[in-house]
Amino acid sequence: MRMYDIIKKKRDGYSLTAEEINYFVKNYTNENIPDYQASALLMAIYFNKMDKRETLDLTKAMINSGDTFDLSSINGIKVDKHSTGGVGDSVTLILGPMVAACGVPFVKMSGRGLGHTGGTLDKLESIKGFKVALSNEEFVRNTNDINISICSQTGNITPADKKLYALRDVTATVENLSLIAGSIMSKKLAIESDAIILDVKVGSGAFMKNIDDAIALAEEMVTIGNSYGRKTIAVVTNMDEPLGKAVGNALEVKEAIETLRGQGPEDLFELCLVLGSKLLVLAKKAKDEVEGRALLIDTIDSGRAYEKLIELVEHQNGDISYVKNLDLLPKAKYILEVKSIKEGYVKAIDAEEIGKTALALGAGRETIESQLDLGVGILLNKKVDDKVEKDDILAYIHANDLEKAKEVEEKLLDIFILGDKNIEKKKLIYKEIDHI
Amino acid sequence: MRMYDIIKKKRDGYSLTAEEINYFVKNYTNENIPDYQASALLMAIYFNKMDKRETLDLTKAMINSGDTFDLSSINGIKVDKHSTGGVGDSVTLILGPMVAACGVPFVKMSGRGLGHTGGTLDKLESIKGFKVALSNEEFVRNTNDINISICSQTGNITPADKKLYALRDVTATVENLSLIAGSIMSKKLAIESDAIILDVKVGSGAFMKNIDDAIALAEEMVTIGNSYGRKTIAVVTNMDEPLGKAVGNALEVKEAIETLRGQGPEDLFELCLVLGSKLLVLAKKAKDEVEGRALLIDTIDSGRAYEKLIELVEHQNGDISYVKNLDLLPKAKYILEVKSIKEGYVKAIDAEEIGKTALALGAGRETIESQLDLGVGILLNKKVDDKVEKDDILAYIHANDLEKAKEVEEKLLDIFILGDKNIEKKKLIYKEIDHI
Repeated sequence: MRMYDIIKKKRDGYSLTAEEINYFVKNYTNENIPDYQASALLMAIYFNKMDKRETLDLTKAMINSGDTFDLSSINGIKVDKHSTGGVGDSVTLILGPMVAACGVPFVKMSGRGLGHTGGTLDKLESIKGFKVALSNEEFVRNTNDINISICSQTGNITPADKKLYALRDVTATVENLSLIAGSIMSKKLAIESDAIILDVKVGSGAFMKNIDDAIALAEEMVTIGNSYGRKTIAVVTNMDEPLGKAVGNALEVKEAIETLRGQGPEDLFELCLVLGSKLLVLAKKAKDEVEGRALLIDTIDSGRAYEKLIELVEHQNGDISYVKNLDLLPKAKYILEVKSIKEGYVKAIDAEEIGKTALALGAGRETIESQLDLGVGILLNKKVDDKVEKDDILAYIHANDLEKAKEVEEKLLDIFILGDKNIEKKKLIYKEIDHI
Repeated sequence: MRMYDIIKKKRDGYSLTAEEINYFVKNYTNENIPDYQASALLMAIYFNKMDKRETLDLTKAMINSGDTFDLSSINGIKVDKHSTGGVGDSVTLILGPMVAACGVPFVKMSGRGLGHTGGTLDKLESIKGFKVALSNEEFVRNTNDINISICSQTGNITPADKKLYALRDVTATVENLSLIAGSIMSKKLAIESDAIILDVKVGSGAFMKNIDDAIALAEEMVTIGNSYGRKTIAVVTNMDEPLGKAVGNALEVKEAIETLRGQGPEDLFELCLVLGSKLLVLAKKAKDEVEGRALLIDTIDSGRAYEKLIELVEHQNGDISYVKNLDLLPKAKYILEVKSIKEGYVKAIDAEEIGKTALALGAGRETIESQLDLGVGILLNKKVDDKVEKDDILAYIHANDLEKAKEVEEKLLDIFILGDKNIEKKKLIYKEIDHI
């Protein structure tokens, strides 16, 4: 088998066999195939696409390129959750404790933020001492103890994906459905949970900018997961405006804790209920989503979800006083009010632009090496469809640099688009894909 | 400017600016852009193509990547010729002396053979002592003395093309009109002749397999040449069967010398007359092609073209007794007759397959490192449209290895397709592109 022939075959529009895909992934990982041949193939895949069978074979080959994480020693039906990334998306910090409080093991390996989207690990590090790097043994033990672990990726999981993703990133070959689906699902499936829910974000702040693409990606991933033998479902959700009101690491942790205390923003809490009720059904803790929703609401009303977060922090070496007393979380030196200069209804708050202002304040990473400023960010005071009077506060800027804050203030006034009342109410959930 | 953005722009179907193309070619040549980004761009170009302006800019950028060869110190209107490569194509060895004998400076940098196609330099090395590597000074001096020089590429001509071609060759990105045209024309234009004729081969033995592609390539190259300010014309010619009867280095030299003596195969001589008469018009030695043809025929009848070859060999250190006494040329140990097992008319002699049998005998290079066996090859005794009786000799195999010869004999019987008389006479010239 020759890599040249594999490139030419895909270039000419043919499907690659499982053997050809395995040959490529294995030898690329082992550095027997050079980057320049891999990038030529990736560009040919970008143009000629992969069919469902090829995409599954690619996913399997990437899983097989490294270690898998056997979770069979964790009792119960273990659930995992993945978001394709958004702005203000602190769902994991709320959903995890809620589901775990219902007795369902929530096993989650999270990532860090890059660009305008945040990462769960960065947010958790707002809590003093919180340890995100767990050994496999700690991960399993904690989950068996308290039904929840959230940590960074352990071991040599999908090295092929790491290498390929880095290459795609610099060769303009990221935006292909099969490559995206294969990358996400290989990482998810290498961690051997029993059920997976995928939150596919769509809109200005998401990777996927239009609904058809997002649905196609969601369906592709659900197909891969189920073909691989894992119960996999997906929800396509709105990322036109930020989720919740907080954007920035400590600000989002605070908002998540408030949500667990029953005082969170409506959209953020609702999304947790939608995802959570589906997980409870998958985990056979609820006969249907209506029952699941009731169980989840009870974890909030009873305080058990909040207590579960405290247990999580405790088990991962975090200082629980940071959860109990939100004033201890990292804070910015300055808080600026952004006041509306006119009246109307909020028509749009571009999530990507909000993410970029937070990034400019220091909340995110421009490059992998960037240092984060955990206390800074944006706190929205108005969301889409809200009525705004002149001089109403649209948002608060949390900053450590006044000059940057002033620049961001200008931008925010442009980002909040005011106009007449919307005829259609905004949607949070576009599509639920429970089976293919 | 970032290479990533250039790749993405071409991937998304936009035309690249001259600045972007220059940035890419310059920095790729200087090794500031890695192969993996270059190959991704090449594959994007394969799919989304380049327009005529981009192709010209690419050609210019490749010319500017290295040295150009100033020929202004050679008197007269200097002509150059290029063939896209075929089987049995010894035109340069005949055309050059004929044109030079008419007083037109014929300046030619040739290549070596690879795969099933031969190269002029290899053929010339059948003549003992012939020196293909000339300094620029020798090249200019010889051409001023005798109106002809044929040598290998000198100096640092189009290093970008060398690097890009090597990359295209291993990433399945060779087959793109703009990349092919840019590669050929950058090399031609870097050698500063006044007029160029391009022989674009089409058919089984050629790089271009169908006539429309060959015409498109010819037109693209003619456009580039003229846009660059050089008189450039092209002829699209038949390479379904080998040109002439000899395939193999010394065999082709012998055939070329016989042609210069007035005893060559009809198709080979006719092609030399077509190309040559156009060159004489370009060089203002003839008012039209009819006059040019008469002048060329006179160089044969008078023996001046043959004498010109002897001068060429003498000026490049070759032993002229090899030209005068063809028995001195490298010879194979064995000559096998391939006899027809049936009667009929020759319908086809697949040129690529003939080229491959010669390659199998040792006449060509499987890889750049292969050693050539200059004496071996195939001498056709019948060509397309010839009548064949049972037991007529179809071809002679010149071999140094009897076992290989036997294998080739079997193949040749399959390669000669016999059948009824063809209704249409085969064509030698498909299209003449004298201006765009």
